[in-house]
Amino acid sequence: MMKAQETDVVRVRAAGTTSASDWVAIERPLEIRVRAGETERVLSTTMRTPGDDRALAAGFLYAERVIRHPRQLCAVESVGDDAVMVQLDAAAAADIEAAQRPFVTSGACGVCGRKDLRALFDLSGAPGDGSPRDPRWPRLAPAVIHALPSGLRAAQATFARTGGLHAAGLFTVDGVARAVHEDVGRHNAVDKLVGTFILDGRLPDADCVLVVSGRASFELVQKAAVAAIPIMVAVGAPSSLAVEVARDAGMTLLGFVRDGGFNIYCGAARIVGVA
Amino acid sequence: MMKAQETDVVRVRAAGTTSASDWVAIERPLEIRVRAGETERVLSTTMRTPGDDRALAAGFLYAERVIRHPRQLCAVESVGDDAVMVQLDAAAAADIEAAQRPFVTSGACGVCGRKDLRALFDLSGAPGDGSPRDPRWPRLAPAVIHALPSGLRAAQATFARTGGLHAAGLFTVDGVARAVHEDVGRHNAVDKLVGTFILDGRLPDADCVLVVSGRASFELVQKAAVAAIPIMVAVGAPSSLAVEVARDAGMTLLGFVRDGGFNIYCGAARIVGVA
Repeated sequence: MMKAQETDVVRVRAAGTTSASDWVAIERPLEIRVRAGETERVLSTTMRTPGDDRALAAGFLYAERVIRHPRQLCAVESVGDDAVMVQLDAAAAADIEAAQRPFVTSGACGVCGRKDLRALFDLSGAPGDGSPRDPRWPRLAPAVIHALPSGLRAAQATFARTGGLHAAGLFTVDGVARAVHEDVGRHNAVDKLVGTFILDGRLPDADCVLVVSGRASFELVQKAAVAAIPIMVAVGAPSSLAVEVARDAGMTLLGFVRDGGFNIYCGAARIVGVA
Repeated sequence: MMKAQETDVVRVRAAGTTSASDWVAIERPLEIRVRAGETERVLSTTMRTPGDDRALAAGFLYAERVIRHPRQLCAVESVGDDAVMVQLDAAAAADIEAAQRPFVTSGACGVCGRKDLRALFDLSGAPGDGSPRDPRWPRLAPAVIHALPSGLRAAQATFARTGGLHAAGLFTVDGVARAVHEDVGRHNAVDKLVGTFILDGRLPDADCVLVVSGRASFELVQKAAVAAIPIMVAVGAPSSLAVEVARDAGMTLLGFVRDGGFNIYCGAARIVGVA
């Protein structure tokens, strides 16, 4: 699947103006369709960079709590270039039907809607919610932390050409990249990462580290929490809600990991030499 | 409205580790509620940085084509800290009801859904869709273009403290900032910008320039196109779909505006000295 394409561009520089061809990251809509029993519907349309669409769908459904366990995905198939069809098990199908009712009757969703507020913050039932986490495990050393952004960048094949993609990577606590995904949408990059494991019938390893190329927002931390990822490392700044959710979930959240330093917003006990 | 808050942080630097207090950008959910006739419902919940919530709601409803003209907003009121109630006129109310039907019967929307694909690309009826634009007006000089990112940064009060906010600004073709908004969500920053004008009963001026601090995605260009903004300037890279939509809408799109240079992806005839 192509992730970048050439486009005509006029380059204006101090030295002069030239016509050229340049690479831009591909952004196209993906429909996530769900078949539950006899009915089939489009659950979501997301703008994404093509590639690993089945993983994107699986990760999205897991993060959104449509499925609570990988085995609830009976089938995940690409349909043409820009759609994925997911067959749910009976329990997830029933949940979807139940979730649909509030929309029709009380209007908790909308034209471009998200779930209602309670649902947004409800992590109950997810592996990363209330299950006891060891606040001192896994352990991550500063020397490894400093090297994570360059490790992520090294794996970003398309960014180098386009400058236009966010990346998310899963690393071991020794700093070895296990998987890296790039996407125009940073939430998609994380969904693809987690979805790759979901398609394989499991969650990411319990001692892994999620590294994101940009800022840490609520939605990225929420996806990590739901997938029970214990440590999240952001090259950029976190938001207030990102810090709150990470704290509530017992995670470790690092931000501004750059220039030989970093900030620990919560979960410092997992960082070697700090606590 | 507070846009940043202090949080405890452990700073790890080469020189040593210290406990400190640091500023993070505030991210909180905003409910956009719509009252149409007798019924009231939550149309959307978006994560945003508090402030200018009425403008955010107005800009969102305009970009999403729930309203086609500012006068369709009969009332826009804040409800508590994290909700805005919008009263629609009869025509918009009828549209909302019509848009709701497909969801109920064919499921074009979903748990975390967007509109269907056709609706995403349909700009018909918006000022920026099929109305003839003069491809050589307004005109923007390279010297002004080079200065736009620093002009945007100068107006970013909260970014300086938190490093965590996207910005969008409307400038004149002489490089004067007319309005700048910051938000954890870059789409919100643009909605607030356009919404400020919508609340004032009009669209942004026909010769204005939209400047965004990051990349140019489909959704940002679409919002600019719907609001009939002729020129968009991004500090970062555009996506393939951003370029396509800008071309189709007759807009001028510049990317990588930095280090004394920039790329023109379409609409070069509006740039002085180039065409």
